[in-house]
Parts: sequence; structure tokens; C-alpha cells
Amino acid sequence: MQAIDVKFDCNALRTDTALRLWQTAASLHSRKLSMPERLPVDLAKAYRLLNHGPTVLVTSTHAGRSNVMAAAWSMPLDFSPPKVAVVIDRNTYTRQLVEASGEFALNVPSRATAALTLAVGSESGRERDKFAERGIATFAAGKIAAPLLEDCLGWLECRVLPEPHIQERYDLFLGEVVAAWADANAFRNGHWLFEEESPSSIHYVAGGHFFETGKGFDVSRED
Amino acid sequence: MQAIDVKFDCNALRTDTALRLWQTAASLHSRKLSMPERLPVDLAKAYRLLNHGPTVLVTSTHAGRSNVMAAAWSMPLDFSPPKVAVVIDRNTYTRQLVEASGEFALNVPSRATAALTLAVGSESGRERDKFAERGIATFAAGKIAAPLLEDCLGWLECRVLPEPHIQERYDLFLGEVVAAWADANAFRNGHWLFEEESPSSIHYVAGGHFFETGKGFDVSRED
Repeated sequence: MQAIDVKFDCNALRTDTALRLWQTAASLHSRKLSMPERLPVDLAKAYRLLNHGPTVLVTSTHAGRSNVMAAAWSMPLDFSPPKVAVVIDRNTYTRQLVEASGEFALNVPSRATAALTLAVGSESGRERDKFAERGIATFAAGKIAAPLLEDCLGWLECRVLPEPHIQERYDLFLGEVVAAWADANAFRNGHWLFEEESPSSIHYVAGGHFFETGKGFDVSRED
Repeated sequence: MQAIDVKFDCNALRTDTALRLWQTAASLHSRKLSMPERLPVDLAKAYRLLNHGPTVLVTSTHAGRSNVMAAAWSMPLDFSPPKVAVVIDRNTYTRQLVEASGEFALNVPSRATAALTLAVGSESGRERDKFAERGIATFAAGKIAAPLLEDCLGWLECRVLPEPHIQERYDLFLGEVVAAWADANAFRNGHWLFEEESPSSIHYVAGGHFFETGKGFDVSRED
């Protein structure tokens, strides 16, 4: 079993470069787009934040220590109550925090946070505070203690559904979504906007390479 | 627990409309693009076929009956040996075939197969042969009995890793990837191409709405 972080370490940026690029991108992003307006997402539609398969950032906290890691391997698991599945490698500090707290959040990053996504997926939070080092802004979740990341498009607050066998054997964690939020500039009334100037979610492949979420189309109308 | 197929039934096309649209799209697709050249994918890189979170088509066969269903809920689970996770609802015919055979294939559809993806996700194969009704062309897999779909971009042949507890409780199936293939026009040397005229994979959201896989970008070079 290889570490999940291997997915991000092939051509990873050096930390200082990543930080500069991330700050520049975040600054451009905040100037170009309207201020985020975070709205609650109906739990029955929370699965739509993940249904199209974006790469996510996993945040966690326990006993005063928090961390953030990237995960390309997550998916919805059920509609109601909404559940998710995510792979959290046994060698990550996030794993330790999630097992200790029984909670985690999935944050859906935007194109402007791709450099940060790559960077936090390439280093361990065990010996460092990634939030302080990188100036990552967070805000409080509604129902769990893990912080949520400001510069993201959607957020799912999750409580671990304890399944020790698959956690140990496959690094596979299941969670029930207990609250969900979205930036109303990107997701509103249960639908992603992703048109023209709206920020887009991202999809990691390997070696620093991502795809943006592309053009939307509706099979019943235009095909 | 709601049926996974609910994801596709909100504004689903009527069958005849879907079939016409699919035939048109497939015809346009085949005229515009070069003939597919299927090449084996190194198992160590098979996870990349799914890493960006595309919607997949699950094929299965047992005792002379085959079926195909759509699944937006799948993800890689490990690199080596490669493993995947996929949600297969207990009410689907696919579930019956996968449990009986211990095998399934994940087929990565293209933009041209979006109407088919929606259509086969909106109906059960228990009472009908979707392949015959829709004229869906298949070819033989290398290591499993399930058919692979011709008009797709990538293929993962999987053997179920039996985990009865999570299969029963969460409809969650794990599989080891025993062979993988890709259309060399879309994925070559371990990398998706998805540039300009290349076919793109798709990401389902809800209500007949999809996103194409969008523009690729490399954080270490351009950000």
C-alpha cells in the first residue's frame, strides 16, 4: 500500500514557490470575483457538491491541532442521510486526527486554490502547522470542530461512520454529512453554476496536472 | 437508502428519444474522430483513468446475461495493486450479476456517450437486454467475462474484493483492477489527452446535467 500523498509528490512545487503562487492566485481571484456568500445546502442535495468527482481538501482537528490534506479519492455514498467515502492514508497526520476526533470536513477547492491543493497534498502536517505557514484562512464549521477553508466553493461537515475493518484494511473512511455549505457564486439552489466568470472546481490526475470542471451540458435539452 | 438510479431519473429522457440522440451522437462522433486504438494501460497507472472523478458505466455478466448501468459514485482505492470502489445499489440488476460473478468492468464514457449514460442509468436491465435494444457495441475483456463498451475512452477490468458487510450495509463494492485499457486517442503513456479535438470524459451531477472534463493545467508550470 502506497501513501495517498504519493499522488501529489511527483512534480510537487517547492514550498516557497507554491506559497507565492497561491497568494497571487488567491489575490487575483478575490479581486475578480464577488465576495463569497456562504449559504447552507439542503442535506438532500449535499451529494451534488461531490457528484461530479472534484478533488477535495480534507480538514480535521483534535486536541487543539488541525490539519489539511488533499484527496482525489472521495465520492458520495448515499443520498439521505447523505454519506461520503474518502481514502485517508494511514501515514497521514490527518488520519490520526480523524481517528481521534471522529470528524472531518471535505472542502471543494476552486481553480484559484489548485496550487495550495497540490502543496498541502505534498507535505505532512505532523511537524508543521500548514494553516499558519501558508496563511490559510478558515472559518468555523456549524456542527463539527474541524475548520473549513475560506477559499473553497463547497463544504461538507462529516462524522465518521466507524468501520474499523475497512479503515484498517483499505484506508477507507465513511462519513455521514451533518451539514453542508456552498459559495452562492458557485453553487445555488442545488446546482453548480460554473459558467463563464464563475469559479470552477478542479480534478487532479497526477504529477501536478489537473483538469478544470468543464462546460456544462444537459442531455435532455441539447443532445 | 434511496436507489442509486435515482441520480439519473429526475429529468430522464424517454427511451426512444434517448436512443435517437445517442445514435446521432455516436454517428457524429465516429465520423469526426479517428478510429479508436485500444492499448493496454500499465496497472501502476490504471488509477489515472478514474483519478479525475469521471462518471462511469458498470458492465457485468453472469450465466449468459449481461447488463450496463451508470455510476457517478466510483473512485480509485489504491495504486498497487490498483483497486477501486463503486456504489452498486441493491435494487439494480447489475448488483445481482456482480454478486453472482464476482466481477465487473468500469467503462469511462465520452461526451458522445452522455445520452446513453443517462439512459442506461434510468432503466433496469432485469426485464430487458439494453445492449440489444440500444445497439450498444461491445468487445471482449481480457481477464473477466463482463463485456466492455466500444464507445468509451478507458476500461478497468475488476474482480470483487469480497467485503459482505459494506456491500450489504452501504451498497459499497471494492474491486481489484486486473487489466486496464484506453483509447489511445484519449489516454496515452499514462496521461489523458483531452485537448481541443480529443474526446472528453464526463461528470454527472443530477437531473440530466453533466460537465465535460475541462481545460487541463499544470500547477508547477503555469500557476
